[in-house]
Amino acid sequence: MTETLGEFGIIKTYFSPLTAAEKGAFNLTDDAAIVEIPSGKNVVVTTDTLVEGIHFLSEDLPENIAAKLLRVSLSDLAAMGSMPAYYNLSIATKLSTTSDWFKGFAEGLLADQMQFGITLIGGDTVATTGPLTLSITAMGLVEKGKAIRRDGAKSGDDIWVSGSIGDAALGLKAATGKLCSISEVNKKYLISRYIKPNPQTLLGPKLANLVNAAIDVSDGLIADLSHICETSNLGANIQITDIPLSRAAKMLVTAKPDYIDLILGGGDDFELLFTADKSFRTVEKSLTRMLNVSLTKIGTMVSRRSIQIFDEAGEQYSLPNIGYTHF
Amino acid sequence: MTETLGEFGIIKTYFSPLTAAEKGAFNLTDDAAIVEIPSGKNVVVTTDTLVEGIHFLSEDLPENIAAKLLRVSLSDLAAMGSMPAYYNLSIATKLSTTSDWFKGFAEGLLADQMQFGITLIGGDTVATTGPLTLSITAMGLVEKGKAIRRDGAKSGDDIWVSGSIGDAALGLKAATGKLCSISEVNKKYLISRYIKPNPQTLLGPKLANLVNAAIDVSDGLIADLSHICETSNLGANIQITDIPLSRAAKMLVTAKPDYIDLILGGGDDFELLFTADKSFRTVEKSLTRMLNVSLTKIGTMVSRRSIQIFDEAGEQYSLPNIGYTHF
Repeated sequence: MTETLGEFGIIKTYFSPLTAAEKGAFNLTDDAAIVEIPSGKNVVVTTDTLVEGIHFLSEDLPENIAAKLLRVSLSDLAAMGSMPAYYNLSIATKLSTTSDWFKGFAEGLLADQMQFGITLIGGDTVATTGPLTLSITAMGLVEKGKAIRRDGAKSGDDIWVSGSIGDAALGLKAATGKLCSISEVNKKYLISRYIKPNPQTLLGPKLANLVNAAIDVSDGLIADLSHICETSNLGANIQITDIPLSRAAKMLVTAKPDYIDLILGGGDDFELLFTADKSFRTVEKSLTRMLNVSLTKIGTMVSRRSIQIFDEAGEQYSLPNIGYTHF
Repeated sequence: MTETLGEFGIIKTYFSPLTAAEKGAFNLTDDAAIVEIPSGKNVVVTTDTLVEGIHFLSEDLPENIAAKLLRVSLSDLAAMGSMPAYYNLSIATKLSTTSDWFKGFAEGLLADQMQFGITLIGGDTVATTGPLTLSITAMGLVEKGKAIRRDGAKSGDDIWVSGSIGDAALGLKAATGKLCSISEVNKKYLISRYIKPNPQTLLGPKLANLVNAAIDVSDGLIADLSHICETSNLGANIQITDIPLSRAAKMLVTAKPDYIDLILGGGDDFELLFTADKSFRTVEKSLTRMLNVSLTKIGTMVSRRSIQIFDEAGEQYSLPNIGYTHF
């Protein structure tokens, strides 16, 4: 931190203004925040931690780090069918962190607060000798008993995903200079999908009454599908050719078919993966129009407890490595 | 982490069992937890972060680190007059952390969950190249509109503290071998007060209807009093001789009067400091008996916006350094 501001100065200057929408945060001057939960609502609570050098790079813009931190949690809230409400923030950072960094970070938070309707209500800021370590605990609201869980999938359910899959994993490769034959426009698009994922905060709550199980694609499409399968005691059949790809991803896969492994296995897309009865097919179009988001059916839940992936020729496809674990 | 367990193994083996009391935690198998807040209650939310080498030592027992982490937040919940309910946990730790460490840490959490009636509902476990960084976001429940705030003090209020003050600061000195002329019994007592502070989780909720302002003594008696003064736009007069000291602290101050600065300025006691109308004096005795906790009047809130400390002779005493800031 800068000597001129110190812990309390940093909080007062950069973080207190982020709590303006919630008087129960007391401008961060009290021990804790006090919030009122509307009756008839459940609270959904999720925690995510990002470490410099592991989940983001030292040279990443503080605005982008802020966006990533918030959006990872916003995506979890969406996957449970809840609307964003509040978040608490823990920042462990080096003494040398400049005011400019905090300024940029707070601006990033503010922009996302406006976009997604979530408000800072508390946190802790401490010094560390190690990498910048950020942790968020976010709360969302959902009608009592209506939250979407991972374990509600039924055999015969259609499997759906929002948006396009694989862009973030390709974007990470592009950002680190590992994709050669790609246009500047496509490269920019993929990198933006990696740096600023778009959590489906409008779609999630709409799904709360309509689907049986949901998860956000953070570990990777197949890894996250396996979480639904495990908790629901089911398996799945997936058609590779049905997986929705962006134009950029499509071009890359056409040029180099191996990239399909990255699309099936790469994480950080923060799209929603969900399973629903066939009746969902009748509402899908109106949802798509209303929210301006594409939804694509990519497979079927089955009672056999494994995931089978089929290629264009109807052959079973096996994936070398699936999913991301932190260690 | 150990190669045999990995992230999901660690969570399943050590952390899932800690969620047994709350089915909305889904054994940590979902994106987020879902909790139901009883109608008529407000939710109090607080975040605290502890960093290895700064807030605790590498060689501290994992059980004790767990206790410290939980109790810091439990103390904040108590200061707002709320009952402990739930917590989320963020752990950023080195890949080399052993299963034994996680086992001890989880045992420490479990012991405190039983003692204080709080339940783990979620979190995140990630790898870091830096020091172990732990962050907790805890939630408490309080009758709607009854939470105690820092800014409610009134001129003329009595100033009270629970328990004894200064033990933790003296305990830290004792633990690092900086207190010489002290008996083994007293040394042990002071160190235990530093290592396992006792948050006033029973007293806090009882105070919710009875007092005007409260804070927990974490930054130091005078520093925390100054937080009440600032947010309440008031000042305070404090009688040094009225500050409650343990037998161990009393002996040290008698031998070396300078230690009084440590008692006024040192933090981490996690006692409650609160201000109340004179009418509180009539209920103090019954509270004391019921909860088996001592309460001591140490001064008066005044309209003059400064804190004045008076010694035995009635002279004003000035403190060289007050309070702890993180940077």
